[in-house]
Formats: sequence, structure tokens, C-alpha cells
Amino acid sequence: MATTTRSGLITLLTDFGTQDHFVGVMKGVIAGIAPAARVVDITHEVGAHQVGQGRFLLGQSWPYFPKGTVHVCVVDPGVGTARRPIVVEAGGHLFVGPDNGILTDLLAVKGAKTRALTQAKWHLKNVSQTFHGRDIFAPAAAHLAKGAKVSEAGRLIEDALRLSSGVPQRTGRRFWNGEVAHVDHFGNLITNLAAAEFLPLAVKGLALKVGLTEVGKLVGSYAEAAEGEVVLITGSSGNLEVAMNQGSAARKLGVGLGSPVELEVW
Amino acid sequence: MATTTRSGLITLLTDFGTQDHFVGVMKGVIAGIAPAARVVDITHEVGAHQVGQGRFLLGQSWPYFPKGTVHVCVVDPGVGTARRPIVVEAGGHLFVGPDNGILTDLLAVKGAKTRALTQAKWHLKNVSQTFHGRDIFAPAAAHLAKGAKVSEAGRLIEDALRLSSGVPQRTGRRFWNGEVAHVDHFGNLITNLAAAEFLPLAVKGLALKVGLTEVGKLVGSYAEAAEGEVVLITGSSGNLEVAMNQGSAARKLGVGLGSPVELEVW
Amino acid sequence: MATTTRSGLITLLTDFGTQDHFVGVMKGVIAGIAPAARVVDITHEVGAHQVGQGRFLLGQSWPYFPKGTVHVCVVDPGVGTARRPIVVEAGGHLFVGPDNGILTDLLAVKGAKTRALTQAKWHLKNVSQTFHGRDIFAPAAAHLAKGAKVSEAGRLIEDALRLSSGVPQRTGRRFWNGEVAHVDHFGNLITNLAAAEFLPLAVKGLALKVGLTEVGKLVGSYAEAAEGEVVLITGSSGNLEVAMNQGSAARKLGVGLGSPVELEVW
Repeated sequence: MATTTRSGLITLLTDFGTQDHFVGVMKGVIAGIAPAARVVDITHEVGAHQVGQGRFLLGQSWPYFPKGTVHVCVVDPGVGTARRPIVVEAGGHLFVGPDNGILTDLLAVKGAKTRALTQAKWHLKNVSQTFHGRDIFAPAAAHLAKGAKVSEAGRLIEDALRLSSGVPQRTGRRFWNGEVAHVDHFGNLITNLAAAEFLPLAVKGLALKVGLTEVGKLVGSYAEAAEGEVVLITGSSGNLEVAMNQGSAARKLGVGLGSPVELEVW
Repeated sequence: MATTTRSGLITLLTDFGTQDHFVGVMKGVIAGIAPAARVVDITHEVGAHQVGQGRFLLGQSWPYFPKGTVHVCVVDPGVGTARRPIVVEAGGHLFVGPDNGILTDLLAVKGAKTRALTQAKWHLKNVSQTFHGRDIFAPAAAHLAKGAKVSEAGRLIEDALRLSSGVPQRTGRRFWNGEVAHVDHFGNLITNLAAAEFLPLAVKGLALKVGLTEVGKLVGSYAEAAEGEVVLITGSSGNLEVAMNQGSAARKLGVGLGSPVELEVW
Repeated sequence: MATTTRSGLITLLTDFGTQDHFVGVMKGVIAGIAPAARVVDITHEVGAHQVGQGRFLLGQSWPYFPKGTVHVCVVDPGVGTARRPIVVEAGGHLFVGPDNGILTDLLAVKGAKTRALTQAKWHLKNVSQTFHGRDIFAPAAAHLAKGAKVSEAGRLIEDALRLSSGVPQRTGRRFWNGEVAHVDHFGNLITNLAAAEFLPLAVKGLALKVGLTEVGKLVGSYAEAAEGEVVLITGSSGNLEVAMNQGSAARKLGVGLGSPVELEVW
């Protein structure tokens, strides 16, 4: 089977923030190995150690990139421990990151292949115990973006970590429990409830309980809500979002990342 | 008349912040359509829905880019409503954004041409009601940066929205009312009063009322002020700024974006 | 002697933040002069006017970039005063910035050559008194990245400013005074104490006093600490760091940038 082709693009998704030199240094390492590679930041503001949030944002991003892009995902509270670095080939893209569940959704893609990233030739000369983004993940991504065979990364594995959380649970004939998968910059609460799956079930209506509030009005655009009104909308993620026109639903409702939501349809 | 040439550069100016995947995804969409285009972030921290602030920052930025650059400006509280996406050709540059006044100053440039951006071939396959940055503006910019004819974007229009605010008003022989057009990272209050226009009128002196304070000392560099002193300076924008040496004038004076200022000259 | 070759890469390290147009405009100026140059942000969140912190972050970054990279370092409280712009050639790289000590460590590199950056042809047409990043430093870096001779920048100088602070001081046979050189995004306190220098002296043990706390447990990875435990670790900088597993040591200890630390070894 042919190996995944390469676009020359590398994306970075981390919880490193941008106040330090960390992200810049990763780009320096990449430039040294693959001078023609182009690097795009997805975000570096995943909550510190929030592997589940990183997984969600990755899922929102990678399908919009050209095939053959190498995605580097470093939300890595276990850096320096025995957790493995891995490479996943899925959907015509390559994903590099720690084996801590951040790549869960890719493992389930049809035809996905996962390898332990053990190729020592791809490491920086000195590998620290605290910054594998610089010492292992960035150089591996650079080699892959430059066209190295994925098989050089290491041996195929079958036991990469899959997170079981993050999936809505049915709790009754008309009820599901979900959660807030991400709070965006505008304070919109993005749930893990796919609109295409649940809206068809809401023949007469629906209501989403979040915090102490029940939201039942579904709109087509933010501006359809009155100023300050809290509504449901199908967001750009395809998931149900709790939004407030010209304001932050998160602040208004006092709700944040990981908060439970309950959907009722009738 | 020849169409605007292209530099292969695209700039992004939004209120999306950088904590989400939004900006990264726009770059992925661009890379898929125009792999050779280069993308520069102006800023993504325009205040949420602050169209006037976006307009100001755009005016500060675009003249420093090479001719033929495509500038994408998305501060768009009306996303998903009937407000049009538009393309403006002005000053040898191209500007893509919503028709909500953010492009007001470009409409006034001599020879400017404005088009409704209706070219459906340039849209992503599924256009959401909440993220036209990804679905309409980024792909249009990519096609334009790659060299598509501007006329393919849509038909010429004459009725694009012009904001009437943001311009200083004369209120007496020696008095003008203006406003704080932007507060920068250092807490400098950048007014909408052009120094080249007003300083020549201040033969003997001038004073700027802002909040509860009157500032009358004009300096040539930040360091000319004593530490903690609040002064006037001609900023890099060419406008009068209220600045504080080694500190934040905004915090010291309790003043922010949009605050009124009153200039007196004598 | 051959001049430093060029990688076509330019890095930016400033205290400008990312909420304004400042950084984008610098990139626009660079693109106009050196269209093929590639720009990498190290960080723009150096504390306002924190020259010493900028110096530390620069030292952490530049060795990871390819030789021939031009590093632009603008933490510049003296902008518009008589302080000189300078260019330093050191270690096969080029450094552009104000002569205020931010380039101290480069001046000490063997074979380093420093020049006053007086080449007026490299300035923008109008040089402001408040934004030399745009008007002097960015265009100079672009000319250098494009291959201009370094000698064109200006004459060699020997008296560039060297900061004497930032170096640990021995205060007793087993005691050293140092400081917190940087607080990273995770709240780790990065000291100016090089692990390779001090750990060999700690035959039986060591303790670091920081704020009101004494930290004596040295670990190999963050995860070796219990959740909430404060420990010492050799960070990715090679320096001793005070870290907390899954939390912010800075917040826990109430300590920040510049705080003194005292190391005892035995």
C-alpha cells in the first residue's frame, strides 16, 4: 500500500501558550530539518493538560487541511514518563503526538495505522525529560513532512490509548447526557452533541439543560437572538452550541469546559 | 483597466482570538486552494464585534504591505444574516470582508471598486451560518491571491455600508471632539486625531481632555516623560496618543476604547 | 573573513503583544523588502520593557535555528532616545536590536562582531519616534536576510551595553544567589542556575529557597511529583526549575519574574 503523500504542511496544536519561546523553538527545529516545510498554528491555548479539549480541537481542524499534512499534537502531562510518542496515519494525513488519548478519534478512522515513534535518528541530540515537543515531536514531523517513510518512525502497534469519554450517553427514550467540549473565544458553549444526529429527533421541540438553565430556542444565526438572549444554534463544528447574541453564554450561565449538559427532544 | 496584480500574500484581521481552531482552519482552507500563498496575521484580538476598532487597525496595517496583497477582515456580528460579503479593490490592494462598515475607509480611496462577493464556486461545499471566515472569506481570498480575476467575485455595487462615526468633529473655533480609536498593548490611548492636522494649529499650546484628566505636555519620545507621567505624543499611527512612560495610561486614567476626548489648541 | 551566510529565516522576539497591528506590520515591511524571507515568532509576550527576560528567552531560542538566521529582538523602552540600534554577528547568526543589553550574551560569544545600525538606506522613509521595530529593525533584518553585507549596516563598535545582572553570585562555600529568569505558561519558575554547573556539587543533597519556601526534592520528570507537590527539575532550558505537577508553582508560591532564589548544596 502506498505511503501517505506529503503536502509540506505541518500544523501545531499544543497547550504551550505563546508567552514562552516553546513554539518558536519547535519551528526553529523544523526549519533546520525541513527548510521548505510550512508551519500553521492551530492553537497553543488548549487548557494546560486538557487532553480531551485538544482532541476536540484537532477533530475540528485537520479535515480542513490538504491531504498529506503532518499534524503535531502536544498536550502531554506525562512528558518524560513511559507514555509512548506515536504516529498515526489516517484519512490521508499524519498525526504525531503522545499516546495519551489525544489521537483517539484518528485511531477509529477506517484503515488507520499507528506506530510507536521510536526512530532515534529523528530525535534531537539531547532529549530532555520536559520538552518532547522540541526534542522528539517537532523533528519527527519535519522528517515526515520532508518525505521520510512513515515506516521508519517505528513498528506498528495496536494498543494505542483510546479515551472512552467525550461521547454522548443515552439516558432515556428522549434524553441524552453530553458535555461542553469547548468554550470558544466568544463564550459560546460547544457541546459534543452532533446537530445532524439530534435535530431530526426533535420533531416538536428540544431543550438543553446546562448549569441551572434550560435553553429551548433554536436559531439559524447568532443575530436571530435578541441582544443578551441565550439560544441554541448549530455551530460551525456541526455540534449544538449554546450561544448568546453579542455576549458570552459561558459567563452568563457560569458554565465552562467539561460541564455536563442534558438534551431532551420531543 | 488592468486588474490588481497579486503579491501572493494574504493578511488576516479578525476578532476570533487565538484560543480556538478558527484561525488555523482558515489557513488550512487557504493552503488547500492556494498552496503557494503566504499568510500573515495582523491580529485576531480585535474586541469581539468591534467593527470600528477593526477598521482602525486595518487602516494602520495595509499600507505597509506590498501591492497586490489580499486583506481578509472578519469582524462580523451579522454573520449568517442578509449582510453581504464584499470585495474592495483600492490602492492596489484587495480587501475581503462583510459589508458592515469595516471597509469604510477603503471605499473612499480614489478609484476604489466594490463588488458583492457572490461567486458560489469560491465557497466551501457546506456554508455554515456561523463561520463565514472559513466558508466564504478565506477561500475567496485564496482564489484571489492565486490570481483569479476580481470580476469573477461578483457584480460591482455602489451601496456598500459607510460608517459615519470615527471622524473628529469641530465643536468650536479652537475645539474638536474625538475618541480613543484603540488602546494598545502598552496601555497607550491612540486617538483618531491626526497629529499632522492638529499640531500645526497649536501655535502656543494644546490640551487634550480624556476621562477626568487634561493632558498638555507634548513629548517626542516615551522616555522624555518622567516615569509615571502622562503625556501626549505623535504615535507610530501618526495620530495623537496619550502615553505614560513605563506604564499604562489606560489603567492610570481609567479610560478605554471608544472613550471621548476633547482637544483644545491655542 | 567570510560574512555570515543567510538561511532566509527571520525570528521576532518582542514585548509588543499580539492584540495590536504592530507585529503584522513588521511582517508586511519584511515582505515588501524580502519576499522570500520566512518569519517565525519566538514570542511577543515578553513583559513590557523587561529587557532581562527578553535576553533570557533569546538565549533559549536562537541555538535551535539554522545558521544564518536573523533574529530581531525588540524590547525597547528607550525607543526614540539616543540609544543605538545595533547588529551583532555571533555563532553564525545575526541579531538586530536596541543597544540596551538585550544582546548581552551574544557580545560574549567568541568572534562576535557588533556594528552600529546606521545604514539610512535600510530605514523606512519616515522614521517615527515610537516604533523602530517597523521603521528600523524589521527593514534591516529583511535586507540582511536577503543577503546584504553585514558591513553595510554600519561601523564596528566595541562599547555595546553589557548587562551585569542575571548571573548567579556565590555568597558562601555552599551557597549561591540567583533569580527567577522566567515564569513559563505552566507557572514553572525557571531560574538562572545551570543544572550542569550546580547538580554535580550537590553530592548529598540540595535545597532552593524561593519566596517563603524551601524546595529540596529533585525529580526527573514533572509526573514524578505527586499532584500539587512542588519540586526541582532540570528544565528544557538546562536550568533548575521549580515546578508543580498539574499546577502552577508561581501561583502556589506567590513568586514571579525576578524573584531572588538561594541555592544551598551539600
